[in-house]
Amino acid sequence: MPRRLTAEALGSFFLFAGVLGSGVMAENLADGNVAIALLGNTLATGAILFVIIAMLGPVSGAHFNPAVTLAFAIRREIGWREGAAYVLVQLAAGAMGAWAVHLMFDLPIMQLSTKAREGIGQWTGEGIATFGLVFTILALVRVRRDAIPMAVALYIVAAYWFTSSTSFANPAITVVRSLSNTFAGIAPGDVPGFIAAQIAGTILAVVLAGWMFEGGISPRTSSPE
Amino acid sequence: MPRRLTAEALGSFFLFAGVLGSGVMAENLADGNVAIALLGNTLATGAILFVIIAMLGPVSGAHFNPAVTLAFAIRREIGWREGAAYVLVQLAAGAMGAWAVHLMFDLPIMQLSTKAREGIGQWTGEGIATFGLVFTILALVRVRRDAIPMAVALYIVAAYWFTSSTSFANPAITVVRSLSNTFAGIAPGDVPGFIAAQIAGTILAVVLAGWMFEGGISPRTSSPE
Amino acid sequence: MPRRLTAEALGSFFLFAGVLGSGVMAENLADGNVAIALLGNTLATGAILFVIIAMLGPVSGAHFNPAVTLAFAIRREIGWREGAAYVLVQLAAGAMGAWAVHLMFDLPIMQLSTKAREGIGQWTGEGIATFGLVFTILALVRVRRDAIPMAVALYIVAAYWFTSSTSFANPAITVVRSLSNTFAGIAPGDVPGFIAAQIAGTILAVVLAGWMFEGGISPRTSSPE
Amino acid sequence: MPRRLTAEALGSFFLFAGVLGSGVMAENLADGNVAIALLGNTLATGAILFVIIAMLGPVSGAHFNPAVTLAFAIRREIGWREGAAYVLVQLAAGAMGAWAVHLMFDLPIMQLSTKAREGIGQWTGEGIATFGLVFTILALVRVRRDAIPMAVALYIVAAYWFTSSTSFANPAITVVRSLSNTFAGIAPGDVPGFIAAQIAGTILAVVLAGWMFEGGISPRTSSPE
Repeated sequence: MPRRLTAEALGSFFLFAGVLGSGVMAENLADGNVAIALLGNTLATGAILFVIIAMLGPVSGAHFNPAVTLAFAIRREIGWREGAAYVLVQLAAGAMGAWAVHLMFDLPIMQLSTKAREGIGQWTGEGIATFGLVFTILALVRVRRDAIPMAVALYIVAAYWFTSSTSFANPAITVVRSLSNTFAGIAPGDVPGFIAAQIAGTILAVVLAGWMFEGGISPRTSSPE
Repeated sequence: MPRRLTAEALGSFFLFAGVLGSGVMAENLADGNVAIALLGNTLATGAILFVIIAMLGPVSGAHFNPAVTLAFAIRREIGWREGAAYVLVQLAAGAMGAWAVHLMFDLPIMQLSTKAREGIGQWTGEGIATFGLVFTILALVRVRRDAIPMAVALYIVAAYWFTSSTSFANPAITVVRSLSNTFAGIAPGDVPGFIAAQIAGTILAVVLAGWMFEGGISPRTSSPE
Repeated sequence: MPRRLTAEALGSFFLFAGVLGSGVMAENLADGNVAIALLGNTLATGAILFVIIAMLGPVSGAHFNPAVTLAFAIRREIGWREGAAYVLVQLAAGAMGAWAVHLMFDLPIMQLSTKAREGIGQWTGEGIATFGLVFTILALVRVRRDAIPMAVALYIVAAYWFTSSTSFANPAITVVRSLSNTFAGIAPGDVPGFIAAQIAGTILAVVLAGWMFEGGISPRTSSPE
Repeated sequence: MPRRLTAEALGSFFLFAGVLGSGVMAENLADGNVAIALLGNTLATGAILFVIIAMLGPVSGAHFNPAVTLAFAIRREIGWREGAAYVLVQLAAGAMGAWAVHLMFDLPIMQLSTKAREGIGQWTGEGIATFGLVFTILALVRVRRDAIPMAVALYIVAAYWFTSSTSFANPAITVVRSLSNTFAGIAPGDVPGFIAAQIAGTILAVVLAGWMFEGGISPRTSSPE
């Protein structure tokens, strides 16, 4: 368990630092063209996702995301107790990733975002984005596990662009982004709406993937392989 | 069959939402530089293609495109009846993808595109684009099936840039794009010309691939493997 | 042999159309920012290279480039007679790719480039670029053949940016680019200098790879595997 | 050993030429938009990394980086004597890569950078960047060696954007960049600070990876495979 939790911590640290740091860098350099900034932010996010999933997947399963941990908990592939420890570690290490970014870019360490992100459009976006992310993982986890690092990375690359919320799709990163008043931030008051939409998307994905890939919600017993 | 049709629906929903949504996002942010907008649109389209083909290929074959379904029907690898069901689902779920984009980006749900796309140049582009897409799939489907998600994704990435039509290469997406007056739209009156060119490209690809990869148009009987 | 030559023709058509077409599209849309245009041109070129090598490699070896054909001829892995046929097909089909681009983008079909590309710097660039391309192929061809589509695609992606000539690295494409007065063109008078540098780079790569990967220049007899 | 050292030389030449050359090209073309320049620089760097690691990994291990050589020396997977030879070759061939770039782009061959890069933020960035790079390699080297070319390439793609120093993460490239007064340069006086941070990150990665992947620092004896 200490190895698994350390792996979750390390991956969350690099993921959150990658998302926020590339947002700061991109905004600093893009001369006001937000599409160019989003290109840099997208490239860095997709790239770091591939890396951390490929290298830490064999240790902890490479969740780095309470929505993913929740999905596996519902499927009884991780215990609720260990799942809770995963989520705490994701939050704590993710926050350290955000603070490391602030340190690296000579910004105040402690911040709160003032960027409003709310409304039916954005919540729909978060629901769809999280549904797609969790469904992708569940679709591949037993038959093409090797494709997961690339598939998850590219899913988020796409979702940054086709959802109006730029696809947070991760409750821990939603919380941590509220601690950074930078490109990728979100005002603290808008966090609960995002997380509710993410949980709804997660549950829908677990149900639909359970049906489509035959095992129901507890695949281990019904389709041993 | 319900699983296969649901897989086609899900993939078409995400593909069409990906194409149209990233077009809206890109145009919103690119400050009038269309090349930057097309970079974002390309990245998102290629990325989502990889994901949906990798995860749904084992279920439905991952067509998401009536041209692909037509090619397999000519080769007798899918029945005409099931093929027709595939196409209906692609259109219906694709339209829902477009409407979801409109909802996410706070746009009117029901729209018709006013973007003219016609002429010898664009039709030639659609014919070449669709020929290349179908040929790529048929070239890989029996010998390097694992390379299909990446090859199709990268083929479309290239074709967005080297064809004057930015490569729709998909009759269903052509119809659905006419329902969205955004970056990736096409005026309804220009749809039939595009689809005719796409069908011509598809048939040529089936014939040439049948000859080059030896099995003729009904490979199963002539080259069992 | 007709299948192999048709494969070379098809691949060369798509490669050259990909390079030139994406150049036209990029220049049309980039609003004068050449770096943005080169990003689009790079993305499309790398992407189409992956596709044509992955799908046609098993048929013809996927040369699409007289420098590559020359390298395999020196290594006696292709006969000089068949090699000559490969080169003729690369040129003819490549020219058709250029003309298809002109047709698609409503440009005059027959053109000659006026873009000067010459000097020690550019010739050094072409020599280094072609050396690297041929060496990459020879390094991987017997031990990691599956990695060739991605490695060649990414090699050219890099070389477009780190060589002053933007890395033609292909005598056939050099000739054909002289037939297109667009973004990727080269004045006919500057073609011989480029080709001489490309041949020098090719020969150096064959010699060095022969030594490093042990088989000398006729690997089949000395290191059967 | 001559083959291994030649492989290190060749890879370092292309890596350093790739990093510096794409920086020059990008800055020349980007019209002052530094984010666009960094996109081109990132793309080229990631792409050439994949190529040289995939093709030369089987020969020399594909270090091209004294931090990586140091990590393997601490783990006793390379001798200190051979390691020292690796580092000398990386520096010498890397410098030749820089000078080849100057030749290609018609710049004075001998230069010294005047670009200041220093301070707590940048040093923290280099420490984190190098830690992540070395940890990525050590995490994959025994269980998913085939994923290393892509993982290292994408790690650097991300790190160019999320660290304030744009992630040199390589003492040899730090020295060589001081010889080029271009986009990717660093003033000679700022080199020692960067290298100290890189060494600290390397040692931390060796210790943590040793613990997480169980073999301690001499994995060969404790987990034979």
